Amino acid sequence: MQVYLAGPDVFLPDAIAIGRQKADICTRYGLTGLYPLDNIVDRSDAGASLAIFTANEVMMDAADAIIANLTPFRGAGADPGTVYELGYMAGRRKLCIGYSNDPAVYADRVRRFTSVTNHDGHLVDADGLTVEDFGHSDNLMMIHALGRYGCALVTPREKPADVWHELSAFEACVRLAAERLDAKRS
Amino acid sequence: MQVYLAGPDVFLPDAIAIGRQKADICTRYGLTGLYPLDNIVDRSDAGASLAIFTANEVMMDAADAIIANLTPFRGAGADPGTVYELGYMAGRRKLCIGYSNDPAVYADRVRRFTSVTNHDGHLVDADGLTVEDFGHSDNLMMIHALGRYGCALVTPREKPADVWHELSAFEACVRLAAERLDAKRS
Repeated sequence: MQVYLAGPDVFLPDAIAIGRQKADICTRYGLTGLYPLDNIVDRSDAGASLAIFTANEVMMDAADAIIANLTPFRGAGADPGTVYELGYMAGRRKLCIGYSNDPAVYADRVRRFTSVTNHDGHLVDADGLTVEDFGHSDNLMMIHALGRYGCALVTPREKPADVWHELSAFEACVRLAAERLDAKRS
Repeated sequence: MQVYLAGPDVFLPDAIAIGRQKADICTRYGLTGLYPLDNIVDRSDAGASLAIFTANEVMMDAADAIIANLTPFRGAGADPGTVYELGYMAGRRKLCIGYSNDPAVYADRVRRFTSVTNHDGHLVDADGLTVEDFGHSDNLMMIHALGRYGCALVTPREKPADVWHELSAFEACVRLAAERLDAKRS
């Protein structure tokens, strides 16, 4: 069974090494990890961006499941590219598993970037836009999609020192994916 | 034909009024706009968050198309909740249309939040993470998904003074959706 390994990991300086580590963990659980091709396509080519999209979509269509790294990226929430892929896989009715290495509640995380105040019983940011406050670690659409198409978001008890290289929560996701895919097969 | 109206508009102080304006524009083009229910569900209810997810998914499944407001929200990129919905609709093979009221290139927008430097021929942010630099206004997965399942991202020539209330780009999307859905029907 094949698992698409989505995440902003592709933007790390050691993206290819991380991809190999993740694929190795998948192998240990009897799964094949498919890692996005962002780093293999020739970026100087004018069609590189479309080639990455197409290759990633082919991999998602081939995969039985997605494991999405929803650790906050460049702001209070998950990487939109990864979130797009989670939505796509939910739409394709594939098994959806995800983790975030930052267990903080979304509203608390927004407070790191902007002032958050209580306004008529709900939280708003400095621009007056509502801050979701359901006690989840990110936007409710992703959180409940995981519940509906897979398992609840996996988070560590405490934020690890290196959120991009700590793979315990990822490994927990691989274990869950292997169990669910096994159960489906039998 | 029904169009799901995705966007962080639901977080605006006048979310319901904006939803009505968007639905009215749809009506003028012969379409029915379906606006997310975040603001109608009783938020004090323990199950409110799941109720919003479920209601939004039911609306997406009923819709023939999505018009996603991908205007950057609380950071350099689009609202992850909206991006999830775009991915979901692409996965369901529905018509995908989107707009952003900020026509800036993604890499330039990241510069507003963090330092961006050239490192070995590619851009990196202050944390050393690669900044996508394909000249798009957001992550390539969303940009090419629009091309594949609908039309290229609609952006104004210049960023309007009020990115949350200017609806010209939205109306251009409604026109495109009406044309495409008409063509499909005939």
